Parts: sequence; C-alpha cells; structure tokens
Amino acid sequence: MRTGVWLVGARGSVATTSIVGGLALRAHLAGPTGCVTELPELRGPALPAFADLVFGGHDVATTPLAKRAETLAAAGVLPGRLVAALPDELAAVEEELRCAPGGDTPADRVAAVVRDLTDFRDRHRLDRVVVVNVSSTEPAAHPHPAHADLAALRDALADTPDVLPASSLYAYAALQAGCPYVDFTPSTGARLPALHALAVERGLPYAGHDGKTGETLVKSVLAPMFAMRHLRVRSWSGLNLLGGGDGANLADPAANAAKVESKQRVLGETLGYVPQGETRIDYVEDLGDFKTAWDLVTFTGFLDTRMRMEFTWHGCDSALAAPLVLDLARLTAAAHAAGRVGPLTELAFFFKDPLGAPTHSLAEQWARLTEFTRDLHAGKENADGHAG
Amino acid sequence: MRTGVWLVGARGSVATTSIVGGLALRAHLAGPTGCVTELPELRGPALPAFADLVFGGHDVATTPLAKRAETLAAAGVLPGRLVAALPDELAAVEEELRCAPGGDTPADRVAAVVRDLTDFRDRHRLDRVVVVNVSSTEPAAHPHPAHADLAALRDALADTPDVLPASSLYAYAALQAGCPYVDFTPSTGARLPALHALAVERGLPYAGHDGKTGETLVKSVLAPMFAMRHLRVRSWSGLNLLGGGDGANLADPAANAAKVESKQRVLGETLGYVPQGETRIDYVEDLGDFKTAWDLVTFTGFLDTRMRMEFTWHGCDSALAAPLVLDLARLTAAAHAAGRVGPLTELAFFFKDPLGAPTHSLAEQWARLTEFTRDLHAGKENADGHAG
Amino acid sequence: MRTGVWLVGARGSVATTSIVGGLALRAHLAGPTGCVTELPELRGPALPAFADLVFGGHDVATTPLAKRAETLAAAGVLPGRLVAALPDELAAVEEELRCAPGGDTPADRVAAVVRDLTDFRDRHRLDRVVVVNVSSTEPAAHPHPAHADLAALRDALADTPDVLPASSLYAYAALQAGCPYVDFTPSTGARLPALHALAVERGLPYAGHDGKTGETLVKSVLAPMFAMRHLRVRSWSGLNLLGGGDGANLADPAANAAKVESKQRVLGETLGYVPQGETRIDYVEDLGDFKTAWDLVTFTGFLDTRMRMEFTWHGCDSALAAPLVLDLARLTAAAHAAGRVGPLTELAFFFKDPLGAPTHSLAEQWARLTEFTRDLHAGKENADGHAG
Amino acid sequence: MRTGVWLVGARGSVATTSIVGGLALRAHLAGPTGCVTELPELRGPALPAFADLVFGGHDVATTPLAKRAETLAAAGVLPGRLVAALPDELAAVEEELRCAPGGDTPADRVAAVVRDLTDFRDRHRLDRVVVVNVSSTEPAAHPHPAHADLAALRDALADTPDVLPASSLYAYAALQAGCPYVDFTPSTGARLPALHALAVERGLPYAGHDGKTGETLVKSVLAPMFAMRHLRVRSWSGLNLLGGGDGANLADPAANAAKVESKQRVLGETLGYVPQGETRIDYVEDLGDFKTAWDLVTFTGFLDTRMRMEFTWHGCDSALAAPLVLDLARLTAAAHAAGRVGPLTELAFFFKDPLGAPTHSLAEQWARLTEFTRDLHAGKENADGHAG
Ligand SMILES: NC(=O)c1ccc[n+]([C@@H]2O[C@H](COP(=O)([O-])OP(=O)(O)OC[C@H]3O[C@@H](n4cnc5c(N)ncnc54)[C@H](O)[C@@H]3O)[C@@H](O)[C@H]2O)c1
Ligand SMILES: NC(=O)c1ccc[n+]([C@@H]2O[C@H](COP(=O)([O-])OP(=O)(O)OC[C@H]3O[C@@H](n4cnc5c(N)ncnc54)[C@H](O)[C@@H]3O)[C@@H](O)[C@H]2O)c1
Ligand SMILES: NC(=O)c1ccc[n+]([C@@H]2O[C@H](COP(=O)([O-])OP(=O)(O)OC[C@H]3O[C@@H](n4cnc5c(N)ncnc54)[C@H](O)[C@@H]3O)[C@@H](O)[C@H]2O)c1
Ligand SMILES: NC(=O)c1ccc[n+]([C@@H]2O[C@H](COP(=O)([O-])OP(=O)(O)OC[C@H]3O[C@@H](n4cnc5c(N)ncnc54)[C@H](O)[C@@H]3O)[C@@H](O)[C@H]2O)c1
Ligand code: NA
Ligand code: NA
Repeated sequence: MRTGVWLVGARGSVATTSIVGGLALRAHLAGPTGCVTELPELRGPALPAFADLVFGGHDVATTPLAKRAETLAAAGVLPGRLVAALPDELAAVEEELRCAPGGDTPADRVAAVVRDLTDFRDRHRLDRVVVVNVSSTEPAAHPHPAHADLAALRDALADTPDVLPASSLYAYAALQAGCPYVDFTPSTGARLPALHALAVERGLPYAGHDGKTGETLVKSVLAPMFAMRHLRVRSWSGLNLLGGGDGANLADPAANAAKVESKQRVLGETLGYVPQGETRIDYVEDLGDFKTAWDLVTFTGFLDTRMRMEFTWHGCDSALAAPLVLDLARLTAAAHAAGRVGPLTELAFFFKDPLGAPTHSLAEQWARLTEFTRDLHAGKENADGHAG
Repeated sequence: MRTGVWLVGARGSVATTSIVGGLALRAHLAGPTGCVTELPELRGPALPAFADLVFGGHDVATTPLAKRAETLAAAGVLPGRLVAALPDELAAVEEELRCAPGGDTPADRVAAVVRDLTDFRDRHRLDRVVVVNVSSTEPAAHPHPAHADLAALRDALADTPDVLPASSLYAYAALQAGCPYVDFTPSTGARLPALHALAVERGLPYAGHDGKTGETLVKSVLAPMFAMRHLRVRSWSGLNLLGGGDGANLADPAANAAKVESKQRVLGETLGYVPQGETRIDYVEDLGDFKTAWDLVTFTGFLDTRMRMEFTWHGCDSALAAPLVLDLARLTAAAHAAGRVGPLTELAFFFKDPLGAPTHSLAEQWARLTEFTRDLHAGKENADGHAG
Repeated sequence: MRTGVWLVGARGSVATTSIVGGLALRAHLAGPTGCVTELPELRGPALPAFADLVFGGHDVATTPLAKRAETLAAAGVLPGRLVAALPDELAAVEEELRCAPGGDTPADRVAAVVRDLTDFRDRHRLDRVVVVNVSSTEPAAHPHPAHADLAALRDALADTPDVLPASSLYAYAALQAGCPYVDFTPSTGARLPALHALAVERGLPYAGHDGKTGETLVKSVLAPMFAMRHLRVRSWSGLNLLGGGDGANLADPAANAAKVESKQRVLGETLGYVPQGETRIDYVEDLGDFKTAWDLVTFTGFLDTRMRMEFTWHGCDSALAAPLVLDLARLTAAAHAAGRVGPLTELAFFFKDPLGAPTHSLAEQWARLTEFTRDLHAGKENADGHAG
Repeated sequence: MRTGVWLVGARGSVATTSIVGGLALRAHLAGPTGCVTELPELRGPALPAFADLVFGGHDVATTPLAKRAETLAAAGVLPGRLVAALPDELAAVEEELRCAPGGDTPADRVAAVVRDLTDFRDRHRLDRVVVVNVSSTEPAAHPHPAHADLAALRDALADTPDVLPASSLYAYAALQAGCPYVDFTPSTGARLPALHALAVERGLPYAGHDGKTGETLVKSVLAPMFAMRHLRVRSWSGLNLLGGGDGANLADPAANAAKVESKQRVLGETLGYVPQGETRIDYVEDLGDFKTAWDLVTFTGFLDTRMRMEFTWHGCDSALAAPLVLDLARLTAAAHAAGRVGPLTELAFFFKDPLGAPTHSLAEQWARLTEFTRDLHAGKENADGHAG
C-alpha cells in the first residue's frame, strides 16, 4: 500500500522531524519510540509500512529541508548522525516540496494545490495521499455564510478573496483531489459544514484537531483521575513557555487565543464543570523547540480539605509531534482504504480538540483507538483472505 | 442493610477521619467529596447507605476519639465545626471501641477479637460487619510453614507466639467471626494461603492491599500515559515527605521497606520494564498529615530525544484515605451480601498493591470497578424484585 | 516614644493583619517571627516599642475590622484564637478608623485627611504619626505638569479634579500634616518632585515602593547568585497566581502592569542585562491570600552548557507583608526622630522598587539597613546620654 | 607568572572539563562564563593569565584524555567543536598525566608524587604548581594519632600502610614539594593538624573543601534570605539525583555520608538552628553529569502562618565545577605569590564546607573574596611598582 504523506508546512519543525524520522525508520537507523502505531495493541496488516510512505508537501518558506534538519540537530531535537546519514533521501524529498501556491482567486489556488497533489500521486504511483496540515497556527477564521453550504462555497471561491483561511483552502483542495485530510493544528481546516459535505461527496475521511503532545496530554490523564476519585478541582492554572517557530507564531495574540481555548476545553468536558484558572502561552526564544509547561491544580477532598498538585513538563514539541504525524498518516490511510467517510472520531487520542465532541479521557480514547484499529486489521485480513 | 464498620487502629488518623466523616455524612453536615461510591457511575441500591453504617474498632492506644478528632481539626485535616457538631455521635462510637486484645497465646487473642466482633454485631443487630485494617504498617512478616496450611495454622495459633503478625491475626479472627476483611495497609493481613482457605471455608470475601492515595495514584495514570504514547521511561525517582503517626512509623526502615516496595511495583507492571530510580519515604514531623511527594520522570521520545516531567503532590493523607475506607466498607458489604467469596480483585482501583496481580492502570481499574458495581446493583434489584 | 501608625486601606488584608499582629505582640500573645526589627542585628533603643504603637487609618470600605479579622482567620491567614482574644483592643482600633474623605476638590480632601491625622495625633498625645499606604494598587498616574512643581501643585489642588491619584493625595496630606509617609504599594504615592519638595520643606522622611514579600524577594537573592557566579541568565519567566482583594484588583490590567513592571526591574539592575521572559500575575479566587508563584530560570555556564532552575513559592501575602509594615513604621518613626529628611533609601531591603535606584541585592540592602539602624541606635544613645 | 595546575583525578569529568575549558580560553575559542575571576570585581594583575596555566595530573584510570573529552561532548557537557579544535593541545596535556603512584609504603608513594610534581615544575620552568584534588570522594578517614603530629606522621608514613587516605597523601606530597594544595572534594585532604603544621613549615597556603556548585549554592543564598527576614524554617528536605562517575561513587553509602554531611552544615550555621529534614543523594545513571536536585522548605511567618517553597535545580555538575577549579588555581597561585600561609579562609565562596568555620552566606563570602583579591591586586601593583 504505497502511501503519500503530503505535509502542509513541510519545512517547519514538526514536518522536518517527521520526514527525517520516517526516513530513518525506513532505513532502520532509528527505532519507533513515540510511534503509537508500533505498539503491540495497534500494529497490524491494515497499516502501510514505514517503507511504503512517500513524503512531499507545501511551504511558504524556502529554507532547504536538509538545512532545517541540521538546525534541528544543532538544537538537540534530532540526532545529527541521522541527518548526516540520509543526504540522498532528504534530497529526494526536497524534490517533492512545492511552494505554497499563489493565484488570483481562491479557486486558482485550490486548482494549483489539486494539481500538485495529483501530480505527486501519479508520479509515484501511490495508492493514496494523506494530506496533513502542520503549518503555522492561524488566527480564528472570519465566519462567512458560504462555510455552511458547499455550493455557495464553490461560487465564493471564484471571487471572494478571503472566504477561507489557508488551512481550509488546503482541506478543500485535498478533498477535491480525493485525498483524506488531517489537521494537526488548531486552525479551522476541514471543520466547516461545507467541507464536511465535500468529504462525504467524495467519500473521504478526515481527522483533527491540534496534536496533543504536552500539557494537554497530561491533563487528559490527570483530570479523569480527579473525576474518578470524586475530588473537586477548584483551580487549574498553567503557563506554557516555548520558543521555536510555533512559539513565535503563538506570540501573536490571535493565534494564541485559538490555542489556549482548545487547551482548556478538556477540563470542562472531563470534570463536568470549569474550574478557575487560565492556561497561558508565552514565547521565550531561548527555549527553542523545548517547551516547559507548569500547571498548578488546587482541589478539595473529603470534608473540603484543601490540597494541591503541580507539575512541570519539559518536552521537545517536535519530537513528540512527529511520530504522531506518522501515526495519523498511517491510520487515516488505512481508514480510507477501508472505506471510512467523514470525521474519524476514533482518533481523538491524538488531539487536543478532537472532532465529534467525544470523551477527553486519554484512557477512553485509547480504548476507542485500539478497537478501531482492531477492526481495520480484521477487515484487511478478511479482504486479503477473500482476495487470496 | 445495617452494616458494621470495624476499624483496626480505630484511634488513628485515617480511622478518626473516616468516623467523623461518616457521622457527618449521616447527619448531612458534609458532602460526599472524595467518596467514589457516591459518583453516578457507582451509586446504587446494593450499597448500604451512610445512615446504615455503625462504627466500632480496636486500638492499642487509648486517646479518646473526640480528642484525636480535635487534634486533627487543629492540624487542618478536619473542619473543627464538624467535631464540635457531633459530640454525642462521637461519644457513642467511643463506646464501641475496644482495647487491642491481650491473651497468652495467639489463639486466645483471636478468641477475644471474635468475641468483640460478635458482640458488636449482636448488640447492634447488624446484617454484617466489615473489618478494615487501618492500623500502623507492620514490618514484613517472618515466613512460617503454617502460613500455607489452614490446619497447621490452627495448631500453631495455640502455642507459637509469633506465628502471625498482628494484621493477620485480626484477619484470621474476622474471617473466623464471619466478617469480610479489608486491608488498607501494606501489612500481610489476609494475604496468606491459609487465610485464603479460611475465607473460602467461611464463604467470605476479602480485599487489599494498601490504600492508593497519593504519589501512587498519580503514577497509576501517568505510567499508562507514557506506555500508551510509546514513550520510553528512563528513570522515575520519588521522595515522599510525611509526618503524622504513619510517617513516624515509616521512619522505621523495616516498615518503610514494605511500603516502598508496593509503591514501585506499579511502574514495572504498567510499563513492562523497570526504569531506573527509587522511591523514598522520609519522616518530617513538621508536615503532619500533609504529605509532599516529588517525582522526577526522565523519558525519551522519537529519535531518542530526552525529556522530563516532574510533579509535586501536596495531599492530606487522611482526607484522601478516609472516604475510600467508607467506600471499601460499603462495596465489601455489598459483595458479601451478593455471596462473593475470596479476593475482591475488582477493587484494585483503591489499592497500591492490589490482590490478584491485575492491571495497575487506574482507567482499567475504574472500568472493572464500575462493571463490578453495576452487577451488584443489578443483582440486588433482581433479588429485591423476586423478594417483592 | 508614642507612635501612631496610620494605615491607608486600614480594612484591607495587610492592614488588618498588621493591626491584629501589632496588638498580639503588645499583649505578648504572639512572637515577632517575620519582624525584621526584632532581629539582634536591628533591635535597639531608637525604635518605638510595640507597646508604643497606636493604630488608626482610612478606608473606603466599611466592613468592621473584627469581621475582616475573622474572615482572615477562617482563611488561615491569622490564628482565630488571636482574634478571639483581642475583642476590646480591636474595638478600640475600630474607633480610630475613618472613611476615606470626600470633598469637592482635591484641596478639600487633603484638608480632611490633615484634620483626621492631626486629631489622631492630638487625641492620643503621639510623638509622631507615620502614614503607611496599604490600599489597593492604583493604575499608573496620568502625568501632569504640576507634579514637578510644588507651588503649581498647590494651585492645581484647588481646582483640578484628578491632578493627583489617591495615593499621592494621601502622601500630600500626610506631609502637610507633618507625618512621614511610607508607600507599601506600587502606586505613585510620594514619588513626585513636588511631593519631594514638600517633604524637604516640612523636614520629613518618606519611604517606598511596593513591599517585597514573595517572588521578588527570592529574585533578589537568586539573581545576585547567578551574577556572583558569572552564570549567564538567558530567560526568567514567572507566573504569580493569587486571590484575595489584592489579586482581584490586579486582575485589572492597568494595576497589573504597574506591579509587573516593578517586579522585573530587579533582574535588569542586578544582572546588568535583561534576560528573556516575562512575569505574569493571574487572579485565581480560590487561592485567597495564599499566593503561588512559579519561576523558571534558564542559564548557561562554562562553555555555554545549558542549565535551568525553577522554584515555587507558596506564601501568605498578608502574613509576609504585615510584619514589614510594623518594621517600616518603627524605622521611619526612628528616622523622623533622628531628623532624617527625604527618601529613606536605606530601607530598600523592604521594597520591590526602592527609592533612589540603589542595589537590588538583598544582601547589600541588608548591609545598608543594619548600618542605618546601628547609626539610629547610636544617635539615640548619645541623645539620651546628653539628655540624662 | 607561569603556573602549573596539577589535577589529582585528572581524567575525571571535572578535571577534563577544566582542561578543555582552560585550553579553549587560552585559544580564545570560548568565553569565561562561569569563571568568577573574570568578573570586573575580581579581575586584576595578581592572577596568572589563562595563557600562563600549564596542566598536568595524576589518575588511577588510563582512559585517554581526548577520549574522555569526547564522551563528555557526546553527553552535552562540553561542545564537541572545542574537542575537535584542540587535538594538539589535548595531546600535550596527555603527556603531562601520570599514573597514581604505587610504592610499598606511604612514604614511597609520597616520594613518587613529589618527584612527579618537581619534574613537572622543572620541565616547564613554572613559577609554582597548584595541586587541586578533583579525584573521587573518599569515605571518611580512620582517625590515627599521627594525624595530630607532624613528626609522628613522618614516622608512620614509613611503615603504617593506611595512616593517611589518598587525598591526604597527595596533600602531604604537594606541601612537601612546595606546592599549595586545594581540595575540591569532601575528602580529608589537608584538613589534619599535622598537614597544617607542614603547610606552615613550608610557608604554603591551602584551601578547601568540596566545591559548591548546585543545591548548596542555592541554599547559601536562600537560607540567609529566610534568616534576614526573620522567617522560621521548619523543615528543609532535599533529594539530589545524579549519574556520572561522581554519582556512581556516591552510591557507596560511606562516600555519600561524607557528602551529605557537608551539604546540611550550611543550614545550621546560617540559621542558628537545625531545621527538620534531610538531604539525600541517589544515583540515577540515566542522568549522567546532569544533576537534578529538589528541595522543599517549609517555614512559618508572622503569627505562625505556614508557608513553603520548593525548587528544582537542573545543573551540569562538571560545567559548574570546572571554571571554579580554574578560579581556585589562579587565586591560590596569587595567594602563594603574595606569601600567604595556612588555610585560605577567604575562599569560602567556592566551598560547601569551607575551612575556618566562617560564614555560610554567599553574599558575605563574596564580600570577603572581593576584599581578598583587591588586596592581592594592590600588593602586586605595589610590588611591580617597587620592582619597576
Ligand atoms: N509540535 C507540537 O507539539 C504541536 C502540537 C500541536 C500542534 N502543533 C501545530 O503544528 C504546527 C507546526 O508546528 P511547528 O513547530 O512545526 O511550527 P513551525 O513554525 O516550525 O512550522 C510551520 C511551517 O508552516 C509554514 N507555513 C506557514 N504558513 C503556511 C502556508 N500558508 N502554507 C504552507 N506552509 C505554511 C511555515 O513556513 C513553517 O515552515 C503549528 O500550527 C503548531 O501549533 C504542534
Ligand atoms: N493515609 C493514607 O493515605 C494511607 C494510604 C495507604 C495506607 N495507609 C495506611 O493506613 C494505616 C493508618 O494510617 P494512619 O495515618 O491512620 O496512622 P496512625 O499512626 O495515625 O494510626 C494507626 C493506629 O493504629 C493503632 N495500632 C497500632 N498497632 C495496633 C494494633 N496491633 N492493634 C490495633 N491498633 C493498632 C495505633 O495506635 C494508631 O492509633 C497505616 O498503616 C498507613 O500506612 C494510609
Ligand atoms: N500582601 C503583600 O504581600 C503585598 C506586597 C506588596 C504590596 N502590597 C500592596 O498592599 C496593598 C494592600 O494589599 P491587600 O492584600 O491588603 O489588599 P486589600 O484589597 O485586601 O486591601 C486594600 C484596602 O484598601 C482600601 N482602599 C482602596 N482604595 C482606597 C482609598 N482610595 N482610600 C482608602 N482605602 C482604600 C480597600 O477598601 C481595601 O480595604 C496592595 O496595593 C498591594 O499591592 C501587598
Ligand atoms: N562536579 C561538581 O559539581 C563537584 C562539586 C563538588 C565536589 N566535586 C567532587 O569532585 C570530584 C570529581 O568529580 P567528577 O565528577 O570529576 O568525578 P569522576 O568520577 O568523573 O572523576 C574522578 C576521577 O578521580 C580518579 N581517581 C580516583 N581515585 C584516585 C586516586 N587515588 N588517585 C588519582 N585519581 C583517582 C578517577 O579515576 C576519576 O578519573 C568528586 O570527589 C566530587 O565529589 C564535584
Ligand atoms: Na515544583
Ligand atoms: Na517543580
């Protein structure tokens, strides 16, 4: 099952780490630590092998991929030896990267993306291409009536300059080109009724939103712990300090707001009430791709005794995100192959702000994910059996 | 369903908090925060109501219960207003407390405990009495051949002074008297083949070991998080600082060792390998019943990038333990009523070192617990239906 | 040396704690923990005794002092037993509290304050009255030309409604009434050229700004540590979570800004450069008067190796501030008695944003403070010797 | 002023980092971050320049220095580029390293060390050689009557195998050879009356003990902060987690005990009382040279309100220690040149357990250090002036 992984934001930290890691896995130069789909509970025949993944993507930046990889190595995100060992492979991926398309109208830009995707699929004789958005977080999109109606949207694309934010334009083009779409960012992406309609029309699955890699991951196990123990969370405050490109972008208050909101949601939905406190994101250039998050939780127990917990998470965001990007590409490809259409709510495990308002408890998300892959593998074995 | 709750170590911090809390719940002076059995997922007809619980117990100490309650109130463990509001109720429980029995031989001491339990049950016309061990943690017991054989144990009780540690003697007596037994401490308790045989002989359930209230509770959600994300935990080190009676007792290296061991087990069993590092317990008198635990976890992710997490837990041990004691009494009473015999492995949710080597993941323990209570409630409704 | 302590914001947390504590010290119901002036290095004959302090003050609120004290006791800021033991003493202080004065013009309000202060001094036959501002933090004041010129200010008071913010109006009135003035808040207070001129004209000392009680206190020893070790601080980020009246007030961005600025200054001035990072203040009602501050410091050492330190400070702001208020009243009274005029830069030890741009190192501030008090005591002994 | 720096334990982490750093400074490949003697307050003509330092040393291990340097670079302690840039310089130092001397009697071993030191000094025509002990921490030495008497010690060296621990044997030999001696470890070193007598006899200065680089450094500013603010420290508990050679060695309980003791002393001596709590050291191989220390401080303030502070220090021990080794060599050389004899108590700033029971406050130590160097520089200028 030859599978294209088309990364929007392909020269960013997450994308570069995903590409280097994917190539290293294929070359047996690295192990699958951090790749959820390599756990015994998820592994199986329905998923494309690492060797079957072919990378390409769009970016507005032009820094060569190998250069980005070296910078990440110098910052301790990647082992330098991997970058040094994979020059030809990285050069080959470089050939597959395209400039983010221009064009006078949104419709022109959509057409350009569709062309890039189709060419990529044809050139490499791929069974399918999964488009994964790992580009910079956008400010929240301006509402527009066409968001709710596919026909209206088609019309608007021809003449309304900003009818869709970039992430949704890519989503539109991906679906249009017959490619499943995954949004790893908090941007709007496919989260519009018109785009849902398009996915259904084309018989495509999509997934999102916002990869869950740090503080929110921890929240998604701690909040259920408090709930299961009937402890009352009084306040939950957090500060995320991060540098890197994502950090610089989030220093922009509008992008920040989108991110902060998706971070707090997990609490209200898990606990059944919203505790006091806020989550903040601050840009500290010196921290680079290593993020430090500190959270303080105050709670009361029996007879209202006051207690508290705090934690500090010191994680490398790109190293946490990249294997999940590979996981999502593999799982979404398998879902597509199995004929799944619409939002893949079973992938909530991977996201801060999962589609379909399901549970925010990591353990429940895990249960759903393992069941989902079990079904995919069983379906594949059946199919292969019938075929054989 | 009138249910006796007989506390071994009845004048200790956990017991006193359980009693004051149980009385306050009965009098509607406090809410059920921290009581797991009051969550919608667990509540139901099979459990005795708080109003049906009658407290009694043994202790080697003689400090009046009301006095202990006041000390705990002064230390901020309990609200002083509750102690002030319940003088008659506390005096009534005081009447039900007995000195830890003397006697020349273990058999004599067993007989005395059996008498105390039987009298208590008769005096209050109780449907059953659940014995819960919340006395000081013992050093690990000396092995003895009679531990493996009920008949041999019966003989040995007559003439071998130290054949059983205190916790097991109480367990023996409880079972002998027809009472289910719960061990909230890491002591040996009912965890001997001979005592299992006795439980089976008498048709009684038992539960344990070692209430999970702090650092280990957090471990039981964080360790699965690392496992589910395929992150490699390299080291996990912890320091527990606590005062109070339990802390003073654990300053004794032998008792400490028992406790530390049950604390580390969760990691090996959840992760499938044992990371580096140790968990330590230090006695710091000034901290009183408020325990501070600090844990450092170092781990690697994708491409072996090194990351770390640390947390500080600042909990009031007795306030965390007491509602679980009430939960365990209710659940064990219901299991007994339903005819359950032998180890209640479904109660692993409550314990650091659960019987029957089941999962250490809190979420999975929760799933088993909710299923268990659903069955109890369904059984009860059926029975009531048939009876009606 | 009978000394009046006139508190602006007399019904606030800091003021109430200062008053209860001062009364308790006088009654020998509490020890002087937290009172710097009771350390062997500072104690001496120049300072008024606790028994010589008489409390009064202004507030815009009307909650009875005893009621505020009970609320603080319930929140764990004060021991309830002290409030219970001092009903008459608290009632006596209640008699000395006045409403924040109204009046059509600033000049009218000044006159009212002067009257209140003069009456207080006369009524109790006080040698002097020290006015200490512990009222809510104001937004930064609007600049006005009259701030730079005493004569122009006198004119403006008669007809320009907002020429001075409240804190400066109180400072003006205090100086006008012959009372030394201490600003424990970050508000403008006496920090205007025209008010300096007034202090000089009246021969009065003044002190400020912004009591140093938590995170900044820690910064003032850690920042010099990094400097003395030639370690390069790359970033210093902080989050202050607090409830209480002060917290609610600081939720107002304008007041917050004033506070945050005075918090960061210490770093730049101690290190000689400004590291990356920001200090934030968030209001979390649940935390009440107990503030939690978390700081992350990243730094490089020899050969640019990267390291980090973090700390969590969990302090009771009012309990930290109140003894300093008493210290400042005693020291300022002694300085006044010794004929000191103008800014008391030797009191930098007590302030986040000390007057006269001196050192921010706590140790150097301590050296200056001990020298200052040594001189005061020596001068007093000389004077007493001459007098005797 | 050509100065030899003779490192006992020359192939260890601290020594290797000192050597690489010293060579890099000489070659202007690195800046002096972490070198206290390069601060404006300490810099001056009395100190030998980095270019004047010549390295040599003893070790029981035989791993080539360049190999150790590469290992440290791979672990992130050193920049690999420096090791790569200095192959000839490292090879030259390799030539100056000697095996820890054997010999039948202690006297034979002393003679061998004296020979090595004298040869080194002659070979390089050095003005003097400073011997710095950075070898593995020893268990506490066994007392022996000869420790108190130089003549008796001389006799015992001839025939009593273990009369001196290795650190003291090196100290003896250094002094015998006319070299000042610095102990950077908690081992006994020169801390014996007989060795003091030898230093005086030879007119030599010596310094120690136990470089202050992490948790104790922080303690030496925080403990004075609590003292200066009259806050009562109730407990101070700490856990030090470290890997590396030093960590492995400290996993030995005897060595650990020596270290822990010198770590706690600072508290008692600064506060005037010993708070509850202990400091522990645990070996966690995975942490390598990066140490994580966590400390919890509980304290009471005004009216006995309870508060707490915790900090986590994540430092690279060798990177913190190495510049201090260079500082100590320079300062001790200058003191020797200035004719100083006996313990250099003014160097307390650098040590956990400084000679001469002086203050443990970092700020006061700093004041003494700056005064000391000012005098050295002034003396040097005078001497140069007279000479000129
Ligand atoms: N790293 C994590 O743990 C994590 C977790 C959740 C979400 N995310 C999200 O993933 C995204 C990528 O993060 P990153 O750290 O790689 O950021 P980055 O800044 O390093 O990379 C983003 C890339 O997107 C490119 N880009 C911007 N606009 C584009 C456009 N219109 N078309 C094509 N490319 C465009 C940029 O040029 C850049 O190369 C962010 O939105 C981030 O919020 C990351
Ligand atoms: N509090 C928690 O969070 C928690 C969690 C898990 C386990 N535990 C365990 O619960 C137990 C009780 O803790 P605590 O804080 O109440 O301790 P505690 O010291 O306050 O109380 C123990 C009581 O047991 C009594 N006792 C001792 N030996 C006895 C005997 N032979 N017979 C009868 N009574 C005896 C003591 O006199 C004392 O009153 C401890 O073993 C502790 O390890 C507590
Ligand atoms: N607690 C600390 O550690 C600390 C440290 C530094 C500075 N401060 C400052 O001390 C001040 C007091 O803090 P708090 O916690 O007591 O706050 P608080 O809100 O409890 O008390 C402030 C009091 O000032 C009164 N007030 C407001 N405007 C007034 C006016 N115009 N005239 C007279 N009274 C007025 C309010 O009614 C209130 O009673 C704040 O400005 C705070 O920033 C406190
Ligand atoms: N790194 C710090 O921050 C720090 C702070 C204070 C004290 N120290 C002390 O500095 C010393 C060195 O630390 P390290 O991290 O370099 O340890 P390390 O284990 O890397 O190096 C010690 C070296 O000493 C050598 N050695 C052992 N016995 C010897 C002997 N008898 N003669 C000659 N050499 C001998 C060993 O072979 C090894 O090469 C330790 O005692 C440590 O406690 C270090
Ligand atoms: Na912490
Ligand atoms: Na921390």
